[in-house]
Amino acid sequence: MSYVKNLKCRECGQDYPISPLHVCEMCFGPLEVVYDYARIKAAISRAIIERRPHNLWRYRELLPVEGEPEIGLNSGFTPLVKAERLGAELGLKRLYIKDDTVNHPTLSYKDRVVSVAISKAREFGFTTVSCASTGNLATAVAAHAARAGLRCIIFMPESVEAGKIVGSTIYGAQVITIRGNYDDVNRLCSEIADKYGWAFVNINLRPYYTEGAKTFGFEVAEQLGWRLPNHIVVPTAGGTILPKVAKAFKEFKELGLIRDGECRVHCAQAAGSAPVINALHRGTDLITPVKPDTIAKSIAIGNPADGFYVLKAVRESGGWGERWRIKSSSRS
Amino acid sequence: MSYVKNLKCRECGQDYPISPLHVCEMCFGPLEVVYDYARIKAAISRAIIERRPHNLWRYRELLPVEGEPEIGLNSGFTPLVKAERLGAELGLKRLYIKDDTVNHPTLSYKDRVVSVAISKAREFGFTTVSCASTGNLATAVAAHAARAGLRCIIFMPESVEAGKIVGSTIYGAQVITIRGNYDDVNRLCSEIADKYGWAFVNINLRPYYTEGAKTFGFEVAEQLGWRLPNHIVVPTAGGTILPKVAKAFKEFKELGLIRDGECRVHCAQAAGSAPVINALHRGTDLITPVKPDTIAKSIAIGNPADGFYVLKAVRESGGWGERWRIKSSSRS
Repeated sequence: MSYVKNLKCRECGQDYPISPLHVCEMCFGPLEVVYDYARIKAAISRAIIERRPHNLWRYRELLPVEGEPEIGLNSGFTPLVKAERLGAELGLKRLYIKDDTVNHPTLSYKDRVVSVAISKAREFGFTTVSCASTGNLATAVAAHAARAGLRCIIFMPESVEAGKIVGSTIYGAQVITIRGNYDDVNRLCSEIADKYGWAFVNINLRPYYTEGAKTFGFEVAEQLGWRLPNHIVVPTAGGTILPKVAKAFKEFKELGLIRDGECRVHCAQAAGSAPVINALHRGTDLITPVKPDTIAKSIAIGNPADGFYVLKAVRESGGWGERWRIKSSSRS
Repeated sequence: MSYVKNLKCRECGQDYPISPLHVCEMCFGPLEVVYDYARIKAAISRAIIERRPHNLWRYRELLPVEGEPEIGLNSGFTPLVKAERLGAELGLKRLYIKDDTVNHPTLSYKDRVVSVAISKAREFGFTTVSCASTGNLATAVAAHAARAGLRCIIFMPESVEAGKIVGSTIYGAQVITIRGNYDDVNRLCSEIADKYGWAFVNINLRPYYTEGAKTFGFEVAEQLGWRLPNHIVVPTAGGTILPKVAKAFKEFKELGLIRDGECRVHCAQAAGSAPVINALHRGTDLITPVKPDTIAKSIAIGNPADGFYVLKAVRESGGWGERWRIKSSSRS
C-alpha cells in the first residue's frame, strides 16, 4: 500500500498524477512527490521501523513505491561511524561519518536513489532504463537493472575514468561516452528520453529517484538514537542529497519520530566546481554555471539541477558552505 | 570474559599459553586457538546472537579476544545475496553470494581477520602492527591500525597495483615494496617480526587473525536461517578462509546452534595460481609451489601457508575444487 497522493510542482503548486513526469507543464518547475502524512503517522512508529531488515526500505511508507520492494534489498543502512580520532584532531567531541562507500552493491549513495527509481521504472512498465552519469550512478543503474532484468543504456562524458566504464559493462550495460562534460550529456539525455520513451532514472524518473536520497537523513537520525545532529555537512554536486536530507529531518519531526531540535545543514563543494558555494557566498539565489576543474569527478557538476534548492535548504536551516581543495601535491 | 583456553599445535598437540606465537617449537606445526566449548554452550544461543549489533563480534565467544571489542565495530555481517538470475542461468534454485566487497571499512574479507588481529595486538601491548600483503590485507591493516592509534608498516611485492598502495598510505601507513613475489615478502617479514618485535597480523598473530575468518561461516549459517548450505565454494589464496569456514560450521553444530546437516566445501583457484587444486587433482597431500601468473592479484599466492589444511577440509567434507580462468580477451 502506497502513502503517495500525487506529484506537485515545487514552484506553482500544480498537481499531476503519479507518472514518469518531472517538469511542470505550466511553469517548468520540478515536480515532487506528495505524501499523506496523517495516514503514515498512523502506520509507523520507531518500534515498527526497528524490527525491519537493515535496508533502505525500512522507511518504505516515506518512499514513493507500491507493493513489496524487490530491488535494493541489501542497499542502505550503511554505518554511521564515530570518528573519535579525527574528532579529537578537529576539536569535536561527537563527530560521525556516514559511510556510503560500503553501500551494496555498488559502493556509493547512488544505490539508494537507484533502488527507488528502478522499482518505479518496473511499476510504470518500462523495459529500458538509462541515465546520464559521471560514473557512480552508471554503475548503480547497471547493477540494479541487471537484477531487475531490464535493458540498460548508460551515457557518460568521455573524460570519465576507465574503471567507471568497466564498472557498468561488467553488469551487461551498454555504455555510450559523449564528447562533452556532464552537463552536455544531461541535456542530450533529456532529448533521448522524450524521443525513445526510456526511463532515465535522473531525468523523467527524477521525482521518485530523488526521494531515495531521504533515506540518508532517516538513517542518520535513527542511528543517532532517533534524534538530529546539531550540524550536518553534505557534499553537493547536482544537489539531490542535501535538500532531501533536510526534508527527511522535517518528515521525521512531522511524524513525531524524533524530538524537536534543529540541525544546521552545511554544503561542501570541490573548489574547482563550486557554483552553489559561489552563490551562497555572494548572497544571491542565482547560480552561475562553472566549467568543472577538479579530480573529484563524482561531484564535478558545473550546472547543478537542484542547486537552487540546496541554497534554500542551507539558508532555511541557518547553515553555511565552503569550497574544499585537495593539496596540489596530491594532483598527480 | 574470554572462552579461550590456550594455543595448541595442530600437528603434535603441544600446548602453549596465549601469546604472540604461531609455530610449534617442537615440530614447527601451526598453532591454533583452543576454546572451552562447554562454557560457550552455556553462554550463547541463537536469540542472544540475534539481539546483538550486525557486526562480526556477535559471535564474540568464538573469537579469541578479551573484554569489549573496540575495533571492527562495523565490520562483518555483509549481505548474503540470493542470485536469482545467475542461479537460473546455472540451473540452481538456491544460489547465494556472500558479498564481502561491501565490508567496512576496506571492502574485503580482510576487515574480519584484521579486526581480530589488531584487537589482539592491543591486548598484547604491541605499538607497531605490520603485514605482508598483496594489497587488500595492507589496506585493512592500515585502516584498523589508524583507528586503534597504532603505528603501521606494510610490506608488499613491487608488482602490486598502484591503487592498493594508495589504499594504505591514505590511512597514514608506511608502505615498503619488495622486489619479489608475495612468498618472498612473506619470508622477509618472518625475519623482521623476530628481529624488531612488531606484530605481524598474518605471521606472529596468525592463530588469532585466522580465527576471524570463521565469522564468514557463522554469518552464512545464520543468514540461511541457522542452517548449513548443501555446498559452499570458497576461493583460496593462502588458505586461511576455507578451513576456518569448515571449522565455523563444525563449531555451530557442536554448540547446537544449527540442525545436523552436511555441507560439502569446494575450493576455487585462479588457473595461473592453483597449487592447491593441482594437489587435489593429483590426489596427494604435497603442495608443490607455483609461480603465480594471474590478473587476480589478491589470490596470487603460489606457496599457500595453509594449503594442506584446505586439502584436508575439502576432502573431509566430500568436496572438490577447480581452476578458474578469465577469458584471455579480458586480459588487457
